[in-house]
Amino acid sequence: MKALGPIPEAFSAIDGVLAVGGKPVTHWVKQSGTTPLFLYDMAIVEATIARLRAAMPERLALHYAVKANPFAPLLARMDGLVDGFDIASGGELAIVTGQGIDPARVSFAGPGKRDAELEFAIALGVTLNLESEGEAQRAIAIAERLGVSPRLAIRVNPAFDLKGSGMKMGGGAKPFGVDAERVPALVRRVVASGADWRGFHIFAGSQALDAAAIADTQGQALDLAAQLAQEAGVALPHCNLGGGLGIPYFPGDAPVDVEEVGARLSERFVSLPEVLAGTQFCIELGRYLVGEAGVYIARVIDRKLSHGEVFLVTDGGLHHQLAASGNFGTVVRRNYPSAIATRFGAPVDEEATIVGCLCTPLDKLADKGGFPRAEPGDLVAVFCAGAYGASASPASFLGQGPAHEMLVGTND
Amino acid sequence: MKALGPIPEAFSAIDGVLAVGGKPVTHWVKQSGTTPLFLYDMAIVEATIARLRAAMPERLALHYAVKANPFAPLLARMDGLVDGFDIASGGELAIVTGQGIDPARVSFAGPGKRDAELEFAIALGVTLNLESEGEAQRAIAIAERLGVSPRLAIRVNPAFDLKGSGMKMGGGAKPFGVDAERVPALVRRVVASGADWRGFHIFAGSQALDAAAIADTQGQALDLAAQLAQEAGVALPHCNLGGGLGIPYFPGDAPVDVEEVGARLSERFVSLPEVLAGTQFCIELGRYLVGEAGVYIARVIDRKLSHGEVFLVTDGGLHHQLAASGNFGTVVRRNYPSAIATRFGAPVDEEATIVGCLCTPLDKLADKGGFPRAEPGDLVAVFCAGAYGASASPASFLGQGPAHEMLVGTND
Repeated sequence: MKALGPIPEAFSAIDGVLAVGGKPVTHWVKQSGTTPLFLYDMAIVEATIARLRAAMPERLALHYAVKANPFAPLLARMDGLVDGFDIASGGELAIVTGQGIDPARVSFAGPGKRDAELEFAIALGVTLNLESEGEAQRAIAIAERLGVSPRLAIRVNPAFDLKGSGMKMGGGAKPFGVDAERVPALVRRVVASGADWRGFHIFAGSQALDAAAIADTQGQALDLAAQLAQEAGVALPHCNLGGGLGIPYFPGDAPVDVEEVGARLSERFVSLPEVLAGTQFCIELGRYLVGEAGVYIARVIDRKLSHGEVFLVTDGGLHHQLAASGNFGTVVRRNYPSAIATRFGAPVDEEATIVGCLCTPLDKLADKGGFPRAEPGDLVAVFCAGAYGASASPASFLGQGPAHEMLVGTND
Repeated sequence: MKALGPIPEAFSAIDGVLAVGGKPVTHWVKQSGTTPLFLYDMAIVEATIARLRAAMPERLALHYAVKANPFAPLLARMDGLVDGFDIASGGELAIVTGQGIDPARVSFAGPGKRDAELEFAIALGVTLNLESEGEAQRAIAIAERLGVSPRLAIRVNPAFDLKGSGMKMGGGAKPFGVDAERVPALVRRVVASGADWRGFHIFAGSQALDAAAIADTQGQALDLAAQLAQEAGVALPHCNLGGGLGIPYFPGDAPVDVEEVGARLSERFVSLPEVLAGTQFCIELGRYLVGEAGVYIARVIDRKLSHGEVFLVTDGGLHHQLAASGNFGTVVRRNYPSAIATRFGAPVDEEATIVGCLCTPLDKLADKGGFPRAEPGDLVAVFCAGAYGASASPASFLGQGPAHEMLVGTND
């Protein structure tokens, strides 16, 4: 039997059925009329944000990285909960403005911004995190043509990375940002162009669980920001310290101690160098805010025995849950947390492999996990499905199409 | 410098620009008005099919596995070129019938067929490759309710697998098909139900390049089919020998010797046992027929230097080319064949990494390859993009959306 990842603590059963947003998942499936289904529990998002706000220094603003989950009703609710939004494309800008989010609260990072995207963002007053000297030049030229002063920040490629992070974004040669040593010259060029100078974006990695490593990296980012601002000879209106906070997906993973991260950052904020005295700081989180709030529900279509092994074949699969299937940025496949939602909390009866409906051996949702015995008609839950799920999976694969998504646990 | 995969021989340059379908790619980009762009060269598909037909025994029918590339104009053209179509979902059935393809020529495999999909397929007269006893029961019940005789075949989970295949579909416990030893009993049940008995589907693996291994597996499939038909005591109207033929993606890969595969199969066909004397055989290929015909074209947006390394940032990425980025069923990332399309055949000037526009380190199209020097505006080509490209990638990731697709190299 292989271990499953840890189910987030917020989930419990109502009459033996997994509850999400205060109601059994069978209620939501009936309401949606279909499976597979993504449920996003807004109460969990709110609790996560409240805990984070309490742990972090008041001076630190909180941005939401839209790429983690761009579901429109979720974005609309996030608008009242976070201080800003980070986007990664013109497509995301359209989604964000479609929800009435003020473009002045939006910043745009991404190494391959097309001219049309730069123009769209500049015209709306979005802050651009410039990824290269070439992009700076294009942005300044476009703003000039539009007759506006663009809001420009510089994304720095730091020489350090976030230790233990699932996704390294700094350290060595990278397509992201401008190498630190070339940043001061570019700052001066940007300021001289008459742009609205917004400061730095320093993103060293994501999906880390070690509080000390995250705090160390934030400290390094502060040191680097101070040094580069000093060298450039300009004040730093704003500094985005990146993200980094992960969630537990796999057996043995433990949640980040955000109180420790907050305490260490508060200490640093007490003794900031002169050049950062007036700087507004933020962190930019996606997965950490919404990942654990999401549950993916699929229905068991077939129960099969093959050479003594039990397979539960569902109507879901990797076309909605690419990362959970182990096919997105993973070297060794490990099990996400999962359960038989309609027998939630029941004792383990057997070892079973939960697969999707796709005709490929890659389509595995849980490999040889311990579950109560399930039959066709039962519902299966895959947890930690709130980030990089629906939008980061090949929904059209094998003619399947997207899953239904619902925001639940809200009063409106 | 890291090696790149082998560019298919059919491609050459016109005035220094990669030609697809007899015209420089710049022509197609102008016609489409946008990048990124998938180009599928129908002349290459036709040549591949012609070579295969010539190599294989006349008795062997050729089916197209729609999952490899469900682009509607391509399917419409395939209708005149192959003898049947294999689908994997109700969604693919809708696409196929939408192109006017006769459902009687279609077979449907896939471990998680919903009741609604079974009903849709049975009503149209599609052949079902049954994946389990439970599915057989559901199909028979649905057909009874509809008052029709369903066309039923059984997918066999063979005890052997295809040696050296990129994707094993047989050998040991699998969610696909019915374990061989339980097949004869199920055959008798299906025949007794009054269904239109269609025979076996035996699929042992895909993406193999070794002709001897493929021929061995086909031989094993023939032996198994004969043995199971004998045990069941019924004749075999049809037998689908699966796929298996791969294409070269990576450095060192060589094309399958289809002439050898065909010669070995012809030999076997001469001395078939009595129980297979009247059987109609087919193979079912997807990737092999269309993979090398596809080219993915993206435009260079930025040329960046980071710590001495060159990055070419394009407007494409893993949202269209998940497998080429190394994130789909791959353990160690290797380079697909790629080139600077607007400097095709020019000498190598430098080592460069070609990345997509996504804000993630996973988004790599070519890692440290040798290329002529490229500038923003140049076009990049990723080859072997005709199968499991557009439809097997997360098109909505980071708000990007699908790529444009064009069928070229046709006279109509």
